[in-house]
Amino acid sequence: MKLFYRLISVCLLAIPCYSFAQTHPNLMLTAGNIAAVRSGCANSPLLKKSYLEIKAKADKALAEKMDVPTPKDGAGGYTHEQHKNNSQNILACGIAYQISGDPKYAAYIKTMLLQYAAQYEQWPQHPKRKSNQIPGKMFWQCLNDFVWQVTVIQGYDMVYNAIPAKDRVTIEQHLFIPIVKYFTTECKETFDLIHNHGTWCLAAVGMTGYVIHNPEYVEMALKGSAKDGKTGFLKQLDELFSPDGYYTEGPYYQRYAIMPFIAFAKAIQQNQPQLHIFQYRNNILAKAIHAALQTTYTTGNFFPVNDAMKDKDFSSEEIVYGIDVAYADIQPEADLLDIAKRQGHVVVSDAGLKVSKAIDKGLSKPFGYKSMFLSDGPRGDEGGLGILRYGSNASQQCVLLKAAAQGMGHGHFDRLNLLYYDNNTEVFSDYGSARFINIESKFGGDYLPENKTWAKQTIAHNTVTVDQTSQYKANLEKSEAAHASLVHFEDKSNIQVVSGREDGAYPGVGLLRSSILFKPEELKKALLIDVFEVNSEADHQYSLPFWYQGVITDASFKFSAVTDGLKAMGKDNGFQHIWLNSNNDLAEPSGFITMLNNNIFYTTHFAATSPLQVKLVTLGAGDPNMNLRNERGFILEQHKNGCQAFISITETHGKTDPTSETTSGAQSNIGDIKVMSNDVNGATFSFTVKGVSYTAKLDYNSKNNFIQISKSK
Amino acid sequence: MKLFYRLISVCLLAIPCYSFAQTHPNLMLTAGNIAAVRSGCANSPLLKKSYLEIKAKADKALAEKMDVPTPKDGAGGYTHEQHKNNSQNILACGIAYQISGDPKYAAYIKTMLLQYAAQYEQWPQHPKRKSNQIPGKMFWQCLNDFVWQVTVIQGYDMVYNAIPAKDRVTIEQHLFIPIVKYFTTECKETFDLIHNHGTWCLAAVGMTGYVIHNPEYVEMALKGSAKDGKTGFLKQLDELFSPDGYYTEGPYYQRYAIMPFIAFAKAIQQNQPQLHIFQYRNNILAKAIHAALQTTYTTGNFFPVNDAMKDKDFSSEEIVYGIDVAYADIQPEADLLDIAKRQGHVVVSDAGLKVSKAIDKGLSKPFGYKSMFLSDGPRGDEGGLGILRYGSNASQQCVLLKAAAQGMGHGHFDRLNLLYYDNNTEVFSDYGSARFINIESKFGGDYLPENKTWAKQTIAHNTVTVDQTSQYKANLEKSEAAHASLVHFEDKSNIQVVSGREDGAYPGVGLLRSSILFKPEELKKALLIDVFEVNSEADHQYSLPFWYQGVITDASFKFSAVTDGLKAMGKDNGFQHIWLNSNNDLAEPSGFITMLNNNIFYTTHFAATSPLQVKLVTLGAGDPNMNLRNERGFILEQHKNGCQAFISITETHGKTDPTSETTSGAQSNIGDIKVMSNDVNGATFSFTVKGVSYTAKLDYNSKNNFIQISKSK
Repeated sequence: MKLFYRLISVCLLAIPCYSFAQTHPNLMLTAGNIAAVRSGCANSPLLKKSYLEIKAKADKALAEKMDVPTPKDGAGGYTHEQHKNNSQNILACGIAYQISGDPKYAAYIKTMLLQYAAQYEQWPQHPKRKSNQIPGKMFWQCLNDFVWQVTVIQGYDMVYNAIPAKDRVTIEQHLFIPIVKYFTTECKETFDLIHNHGTWCLAAVGMTGYVIHNPEYVEMALKGSAKDGKTGFLKQLDELFSPDGYYTEGPYYQRYAIMPFIAFAKAIQQNQPQLHIFQYRNNILAKAIHAALQTTYTTGNFFPVNDAMKDKDFSSEEIVYGIDVAYADIQPEADLLDIAKRQGHVVVSDAGLKVSKAIDKGLSKPFGYKSMFLSDGPRGDEGGLGILRYGSNASQQCVLLKAAAQGMGHGHFDRLNLLYYDNNTEVFSDYGSARFINIESKFGGDYLPENKTWAKQTIAHNTVTVDQTSQYKANLEKSEAAHASLVHFEDKSNIQVVSGREDGAYPGVGLLRSSILFKPEELKKALLIDVFEVNSEADHQYSLPFWYQGVITDASFKFSAVTDGLKAMGKDNGFQHIWLNSNNDLAEPSGFITMLNNNIFYTTHFAATSPLQVKLVTLGAGDPNMNLRNERGFILEQHKNGCQAFISITETHGKTDPTSETTSGAQSNIGDIKVMSNDVNGATFSFTVKGVSYTAKLDYNSKNNFIQISKSK
Repeated sequence: MKLFYRLISVCLLAIPCYSFAQTHPNLMLTAGNIAAVRSGCANSPLLKKSYLEIKAKADKALAEKMDVPTPKDGAGGYTHEQHKNNSQNILACGIAYQISGDPKYAAYIKTMLLQYAAQYEQWPQHPKRKSNQIPGKMFWQCLNDFVWQVTVIQGYDMVYNAIPAKDRVTIEQHLFIPIVKYFTTECKETFDLIHNHGTWCLAAVGMTGYVIHNPEYVEMALKGSAKDGKTGFLKQLDELFSPDGYYTEGPYYQRYAIMPFIAFAKAIQQNQPQLHIFQYRNNILAKAIHAALQTTYTTGNFFPVNDAMKDKDFSSEEIVYGIDVAYADIQPEADLLDIAKRQGHVVVSDAGLKVSKAIDKGLSKPFGYKSMFLSDGPRGDEGGLGILRYGSNASQQCVLLKAAAQGMGHGHFDRLNLLYYDNNTEVFSDYGSARFINIESKFGGDYLPENKTWAKQTIAHNTVTVDQTSQYKANLEKSEAAHASLVHFEDKSNIQVVSGREDGAYPGVGLLRSSILFKPEELKKALLIDVFEVNSEADHQYSLPFWYQGVITDASFKFSAVTDGLKAMGKDNGFQHIWLNSNNDLAEPSGFITMLNNNIFYTTHFAATSPLQVKLVTLGAGDPNMNLRNERGFILEQHKNGCQAFISITETHGKTDPTSETTSGAQSNIGDIKVMSNDVNGATFSFTVKGVSYTAKLDYNSKNNFIQISKSK
C-alpha cells in the first residue's frame, strides 16, 4: 500500500486486486452510451460532421486493397505510412461499426488483425533504426509502435464482441501479447522512463490490459515494470508536469504527450473509477490541458520553444481528445467549447457527444487567454514561462519570456528567450526545430543535423549570447542541472511585466531580462518594452538578436549590405549558419529599425549603455543541403565589462493596404530613448510617446514597486 | 468628320456640337435613379454593406480636423496621403449626401473645396519630383493629380445642387478651371500620350467638362488637345487595347488603366448616349474588363508579368468599377456576379444597384476561367499571352506563357517567360516589380533601382537567357520594335498547348517554347510539359531558370551548397543579384528536383540534348539596401551550338498534413524522360507515368498535328 502514497494524498483508496469491468467498448466510447452517441451522430452538427469524416475514412479503407507489409522504411516511407494508416483505419472502422452497426467494418478489423497476427512474431526488429532510439518492430523507433498499439487497441475494443472468440485468441496470443512483451522487455528502458515516450509505452500496455483483461499489464502501467511505483503512470503524473500543468519539454511536446495521458486516464476512469484519476494531484490533467491551450497564440499555434514544428496548432488530434475529455469528464468550462468549434470536430465518443451538444445549446464563450507565469519543474520551482497578453483575441499582442528549465533532450539553449506576436502573426520569432517531419528524403523525416548545429544554439534565439558561445556551451547535462528563475511577474491594468534571471549559463555573467507590455494613453496598442541586463566583472561580447518576420523598411542608420563574397559570422555555436549582411557601428548608443510585417509597421527603438553595433543577418550559411529557411534578424552587440543593458521599445504602428495601395502611420510615435541610470539593482530610462515624455524605473529588489512608468514631470 | 472614322466604324454618328445634359449627379450615380439606389442601400445586402462602408468613411472624415496642407511630401508622406484622403473623403461625402440627404456632407465638400480654391493657384509645381515624370501641383507626379481630379469631380457632381452658386463659381474659377489648365498646358505632353497616364489626364478633363458644363474640355478629352482625333480617348481605345481587350502594359497596369476608361466612358454614356461609347470598337471596353479578369489566377491575383505589385488582386477598386459597369451597362453576364461577391462590395451607384439586386436574385455563376490566347498589339498581331487552365476553380492548374510585345516602359525583358500555378499558389513565379509602393522610406515609394537591375532583366524570369545577357541587351527601344509571336494554341480535352517564338532577342539565336498541360489517365492532375528549343549556329551558353516557391526536398543528384564565402553569379544583367549556392554538373543530361509548396509536392523532371548543369541559387546579392526578397531558383544550363532543347515535366503529387503530421505520395510517378529526336521542325521524347510509357511528338510545322501524346506501342 505504501507505494501509493501519492494516490492516497488525493483520497484514500484501496485498489482491490485490479478487478475491472469486462464490457466492450469501454474506453472513449462506452457500451452504455452507444445509443446516445448514435443519436448525436444523426442530430448534433459537430458530432455528425466528425462521424461522417470518420465514416468516410473507414469506407475509403474498405475500398482499398488491404496491405500489411514487412516493415522496411523510415518515417515518410511506404511501410511506415502504411502501418500508420492501418492503425488509423482500424480505429475509424471500429467507430463506424459501433455507430452504424454494419458488420463489414468489424470484419475489416478482424481480417487485418489476423494478418498482423500471422506475421508479427516473425518480424525482426525494424531494419532501420532512428539514431539513439530503440527500434520498434513495425517502425524505425519503438515510439511509433506504442502509438500504433494505443490506436489499434481502441479499435479492437469497439469490435471485440463482433470477432469470434477463436479469432480473438489468435489476435491476442500472436499479436497483442507479443507486442506487450516487446514493449515491456526489449523496450523496458523506455517503459520505465519518466518521459513522453514512456507515457505512450505504458498507455499502450495499460489500455491493452483493460481490453484483453490482463490486470498485470494495468498494474505495470500504473506502477512501473517492477510494480513498485518508482516509475509508471502515477509517477509520470507526479514528475512530468509542474503544479501549473506545464510539461517541461515545452508546448509542442506537451501537446504530443497529452494524448496518451488522456487516453489512458479515460481508460482508467472507465475501468477503475475508484481511482479518481482525473482528480489525481489536484486535477493535474485538467491543468495540463489548460496549460497546453495557454501556450498557444490566438492563431492556435503553439509557442515554438524547444524542438517544435511551427505549423502545429491546437486543432491537432491530441488536443481534440484533450478538450473533449476535459469538458466532459473533468470540468465543463464554456471557453473550451470555443476551441472545440475552431478544431471543427470532436472525438466520436461519449465526451465528443457532450461537447457537441453543449455547442448546440449555445454555451460556448471566447477562449480566455490570460497573462500568466506557468511554473516549470515537478515542484514548480524551476522557473517557467512568462506570458503577457494585451487586447482582444482578434488582434492580440503577446509576449513570451522563457525562463524555464532545460526541458530534457528536446530543450534549446535559450534561457531568457523572447517571442513577440501581434496582429495574428509572429513579430519576433523562434526558428522552432530544423526538421521536415515525415519527409523521408530529408534525413529520413527526422531532426536534421542543423537542429543541433543551429536550432538549439543560443544565437538562434532572441536572447543574449556571450562571447559567441552558446549557454552552458550547449552541454545538455550541465544545462539540465540548472534552471532559469522568475524574478517578478505582475499584471496590472496598463502595465504587465515578467522578469527572469539566469546566472549559470555563462560563468561569471549574470543575465536578467524584464519584458513589459505598457499601454500609454496616447496609443491604441501597447508598447513592448524590454530591458536585458548583463553583468560581469570581465570583458565580454554580448550579442542580442531579434529574429524578425517581414522586411526592414527603415532604420536610423544607413547600412550597406555586402554585395559579393558573403561571409558566415563564425565557425561554430550556430554562428557558422549566419550570413553577415551588414555590420554597423553606431555613432550613438541608440537607434531604431522599422519592419513591415503583415501590412503593419513595427519599429524597435533600442538604446545601450556602451557603444553599440548592429548587425543585419540572414540565416543560411554552413548549410550544404540547403535545409534551413532564410530567416532574417538584426543583432545588437556591446563589448565591455560591468553592468550594462540593452533597452528596447517596440511600437506597432500604421498600416499598408496592398489592395488600395495606401499607407499610413509609417513613422513611429516613439522617440528619445535615454538611459538615465543602470546598475544591478535597477534601471531608469526615459522616452517620448507622440512628444509626451515618460520615465520608466525598474527596481529589481522591490516586490511592490518593481516597475513604475509615469509621465515625466 | 473624317477624324472619327473609327467611331463611324461602329455606327454612323454625328456629334452635334457636344451638347449634353445639365442635370446633377449624372456620372456613376444619376439623378433619375437616386430613389432606387436609396432603396437598395436599405434593402439589398451587398449594396447596403457597401454604402455603410462609404458612410462610415464619410462620418470619419467629418469627425476629423480638415486639413488642406501645402504640398511637400513624396508618396507615402503626410501631404501626399492627406491630399489623397481628401479626394476620397470628398467622393464618400458626395455619396453619403445623395443617399442620406443630410446637408452636412455637402457642407463638408463645399468647405474643403473652398479651401483648395483659396490655395491651389498659389501652389508652385510640387517641390519633389518623381524621376522622369512631370510633377503635379498637389503630388510629386502629375498622374496623382489626375487621379485626384477624377475622384473629386465625382463628389462635386453629387453635391453640385447643394452648393450655393457663388461658391460654385469660386470653386470652378479658382480650382477646377486652373486644374484643367495645368493638365492641358504643363501636362500637355501627358494629355496627348497614348498611355494610361494620358487616360487618367483626359478622363479628369473630360469628366470635369461634363460636370461644369464646358464642352471644349470634353472635345479635347475625346479628340486630343488639338481636337484632331490623333490623340484623345477614342484614339486610346483604338491603340491601347488589342482586339481581345488586352492592354499592352500587362495585367497589373490593365487593372489600373481600366479605372479612368470606365469612369469616363460611363460619363460619356450618361451625357452623350448618342456616342454609344460602350459599343465602340466592337465592345472593346467589355473585352478589356474580361481580359483583366482572365489574366488573374483563381486567387484573384493578377499575373505579375512586367512591373507589377504581386499582392494586387481583382478586389481592387478599379475592377469593382469595371465589374459593375460591365454588368449593368454593357452585358449582364452571370459570372461577373461571382467576382462581385468575392470583391465584397459594389460601387454605390446605378450600376452597383443592378449588381447587388442580381446577386439577391441568385443569378450568380462561378467565374468562367478559360484557356485562351490573348492577342497583344492594336491589331492583335504582336504575339500575346497564352493561358492554359485545368481543373475546377477550387484547385486549378494554370500556365501562362508570355509571348507578347514589350509593353512600353513597364515591360520586362521576359519573352517566353513561363508562370505556373496550382492549388491556389504560385509554383514557378515571377518576381514582379521591385518596389515598396507608397513607403516613403524605401526610395520614396517608387520603383527601386533593383527594379531595373534585377526585376526587368531576363534572368529574373523563367525563360532562357543567352550568354548571361538580357534579351535585346535590355534596350527598351530595340525591344519595343519587335514582339514575340504565337506559333500554335489549342485546347483539346486532355491536351492543351501554347507555343510561342522569339527570334529577335538574341541575334542569330532562335527561341521557341511550347508549354503543355497534359492529363494522363493514370493521374488526377495534369502534367506541365515544357519544351524550350534553342537554335543557333554559334556556341552559346543557355540558362533556363525555374524560380520556385517552397523548398527543395529531393533531387536526383547530390548537391553541396557553398557554406562560406558566397559569390554572386555575375557582374550585370541581373546576375549580380544572384547568389550561387550550388553548381552541379550532371553525369547524365537528365534529372529531377522535388519541391514542397503549400503542403503539396512538385517534381520537375528535366532532360536536355547536351550536357547539363544545374545551379541552385538564391536572390539577394548586389543589394546594399536589402531591398530584394530572398527567392530561390534552380537554373538549367547547356553550352553548345546547333538545335537543342530543355524538356521538362512537372508533376503535382502527394501531400503533407502539418496538423496530423502525415505525408503521402512524396515520390513522383514520372520517370525515364528520354529525348528521341530534336531539330528545328520538332521534338520527340518519351517518359513513363506510373510505369506506363508515353511518347510525345511535337511538329512545329503542323497545324493539325502540332502535338501528339500517346502510349508507346
